[in-house]
Amino acid sequence: MASISTILPKTTSFLSQPLTKSHKSDSITKSISFPSNSRNRTLRALKVRAGLIEPDGGKLIDLVVPEPRRREKKHEATDLPKVRLTAIDLQWMHVLSEGWASPLRGFMRESEFLQTLHFNLLNLDDGSVVNMSVPIVLAIDDEQKALIGESKRVALVDSDDIPIAILNDIEIYKHPKEERIARTWGTTAPGLPYVEEAIANAGNWLIGGDLEVLEPVKYNDGLDRFRLSPFELRKELEKRGADAVFAFQLRNPVHNGHALLMTDTRRRLLEMGYKNPILLLHPLGGFTKADDVPLSWRMKQHEKVLEDGVLDPETTVVSIFPSPMLYAGPTEVQWHAKARINAGANFYIVGRDPAGMGHPVEKRDLYDADHGKKVLSMAPGLERLNILPFRVAAYDKTQGKMAFFDPSRAQDFLFISGTKMRTLAKNKENPPDGFMCPGGWKVLVDYYDSLTLTGNTRLPEKIPV
Amino acid sequence: MASISTILPKTTSFLSQPLTKSHKSDSITKSISFPSNSRNRTLRALKVRAGLIEPDGGKLIDLVVPEPRRREKKHEATDLPKVRLTAIDLQWMHVLSEGWASPLRGFMRESEFLQTLHFNLLNLDDGSVVNMSVPIVLAIDDEQKALIGESKRVALVDSDDIPIAILNDIEIYKHPKEERIARTWGTTAPGLPYVEEAIANAGNWLIGGDLEVLEPVKYNDGLDRFRLSPFELRKELEKRGADAVFAFQLRNPVHNGHALLMTDTRRRLLEMGYKNPILLLHPLGGFTKADDVPLSWRMKQHEKVLEDGVLDPETTVVSIFPSPMLYAGPTEVQWHAKARINAGANFYIVGRDPAGMGHPVEKRDLYDADHGKKVLSMAPGLERLNILPFRVAAYDKTQGKMAFFDPSRAQDFLFISGTKMRTLAKNKENPPDGFMCPGGWKVLVDYYDSLTLTGNTRLPEKIPV
Repeated sequence: MASISTILPKTTSFLSQPLTKSHKSDSITKSISFPSNSRNRTLRALKVRAGLIEPDGGKLIDLVVPEPRRREKKHEATDLPKVRLTAIDLQWMHVLSEGWASPLRGFMRESEFLQTLHFNLLNLDDGSVVNMSVPIVLAIDDEQKALIGESKRVALVDSDDIPIAILNDIEIYKHPKEERIARTWGTTAPGLPYVEEAIANAGNWLIGGDLEVLEPVKYNDGLDRFRLSPFELRKELEKRGADAVFAFQLRNPVHNGHALLMTDTRRRLLEMGYKNPILLLHPLGGFTKADDVPLSWRMKQHEKVLEDGVLDPETTVVSIFPSPMLYAGPTEVQWHAKARINAGANFYIVGRDPAGMGHPVEKRDLYDADHGKKVLSMAPGLERLNILPFRVAAYDKTQGKMAFFDPSRAQDFLFISGTKMRTLAKNKENPPDGFMCPGGWKVLVDYYDSLTLTGNTRLPEKIPV
Repeated sequence: MASISTILPKTTSFLSQPLTKSHKSDSITKSISFPSNSRNRTLRALKVRAGLIEPDGGKLIDLVVPEPRRREKKHEATDLPKVRLTAIDLQWMHVLSEGWASPLRGFMRESEFLQTLHFNLLNLDDGSVVNMSVPIVLAIDDEQKALIGESKRVALVDSDDIPIAILNDIEIYKHPKEERIARTWGTTAPGLPYVEEAIANAGNWLIGGDLEVLEPVKYNDGLDRFRLSPFELRKELEKRGADAVFAFQLRNPVHNGHALLMTDTRRRLLEMGYKNPILLLHPLGGFTKADDVPLSWRMKQHEKVLEDGVLDPETTVVSIFPSPMLYAGPTEVQWHAKARINAGANFYIVGRDPAGMGHPVEKRDLYDADHGKKVLSMAPGLERLNILPFRVAAYDKTQGKMAFFDPSRAQDFLFISGTKMRTLAKNKENPPDGFMCPGGWKVLVDYYDSLTLTGNTRLPEKIPV
């Protein structure tokens, strides 16, 4: 199960590396070393700009039509063949429109799809590469393909058939579902949540092209204020004077083990000489599997964690990452990291089995728990990002709080499994003091209560500790 | 089914590109352009040295222990824990020992395995990358792992338990079979020949390390004289004064359609200004599926093709490529190309559905017929290699010979399917004059005869035309 704490075998902590300075083009860069797992690249120097990290491709993509031209574009859209988007398609359109996938300018054409599937990267015109590990594609069926005919443009419409975007200079190509699934997930076993939701019944064609989005994407669910675009995040981070930004991806409630490593990371970044490291606490907001805690409840829980002072609001930005969740482990963690570069993060925290889940058929985890951080450390196009693997946290009975696990006194530690935590919350029992702030815990209890009250039996899976 | 002729949609023939000259370091390079399928890299200039292309990593790896130290190494090996190699393991050891996979120095450790699975490349210490698309790994089971214990070295032994190599500084890690298969083949359907032969029943661990091979690998099957190592091939190509080397990978009998494109390629390379382009006719010699024509018969057939003057022995080197065949389509074709760089080839001919086969379960080809050459043109680490996609050849009834298909007079052409060819050979009938040289055809007829005589019902699948 996806858990977010681990220890790197015989790792030299990233924090114990000496700072070196080097000059690259016109900006001063800080460079730290990260111990690689590869014998072929014993040390890799990761360079960090003193300001915010540049977006992939050098420029943040913004695909929303500027206000003065929206009327005209909406008019154009009415005459085009229509492709209706699913909820997940819309989430990807949102992702693309705000430049999370910069420099991608729309749903992938075949060349981009193949580079993603085979190499987890995109080649740019200037000979450089950016990371791109998950296909961002739009499927259509035979009937839709026939309706599009020879048109070079289509309108993308919502569930009410209202045009919300135009896809230009389109390319339609075969949707090799089995191959897409096998190469993205490393399995074709039935029961992969994203596959069942978004691929299994999707059309046999993919349509790529350049997007023009007619309005900024809003969900009107009371959470839009948390949905900062990469551009808005960068503005906020600059306003706060961040000289280091460390991103924490999550799709689960925050407990004090998570909080420990976030505050510890900040402390150590300060020790390294950064003056104002800012935490980007970045819960995933798109599709999640049925037994994950829904976004609205997670946001309530995260707010409580900040209210209760577990994390410092002054140095924390909480925002929603609009991507759907694939549960594709080592392949997906690259996407999670790459998107955060575009939002201005130059440090990325990675734990045990990121974006992982149980094998849908066999009684084991789908991915090796260490592959995620290993693959992330090798991934082409992510060399600029500082990967921060972290040590495992557990409940220290002697201190009555979450602490980094010390194997020399293993008997002092309690690993509270997700199942245990779930059972406690369902039974309205309390976890040991110091496991989670009381306000946050109450949100969890309320969530399970709400399930009972509505008769909804959807229950969250193990919540990693 | 794998066929080796095709036409690139709206391709500008590689041969119609103007020659430009550029200076790079101290060698004069020729540069031609290849139309890319990617909008993000509209044109990619491929640079070719005037001499032989450099091996990957700059140096050809040779893992055979030099003669003076063999006795000592053999003695060392006797005291080490033993790992017995299968026939396919031995073929990979052969591949590694001669540097076909340069700069790889042995069976992959986990870092190399993960880079191969996820990115089809290996990162080198100097920051450069080389292509590496297929895992070259050695599986062991729980019992073997227990026997190895804490040893840092093992002896690799043949089927008679004779040590043939030492693996040094070993690393043992989990063998994620399902994931390996899914990411390499893009399917996990049962019936993949290599998977059934070499993975399904293999152990749950992989063992990587640096190889020392105790003797050059020989098969004593009468064909060793054709098994030139990359080093020997380079010597031969230099002796012949090659200023361009174009490789043709095949695992099937050569017909006049193949011959046409090989001679046509040479003619055009001459037109481009090369003085002495040499063809490397390079049949695959390792594991093939049961219904492919066996190596010994293919070699007889290839010899006849040269004897009959269809190909010019003066400008053709026939040699055996010792790799096993994976039938992994776009993933495998990169390996086929990369290994030929190490043998000195700077041009690589690629056709329709390279390394492809029928889907083992569904009634369709496993891979899109165009993906192989597209993926090859995008593959990291292969930028130095000139990829030559080629036009489809068919039997031209008006000329009574194989010719490039001309869609404007489609009715004049006959596509002789593999099934048709097989049926003809089995029935000792002749194909149309000019389809295959008579000597080569007779070898095929003899092969099917031999099957009947021995009662062996193993029959080749479609032989592509």
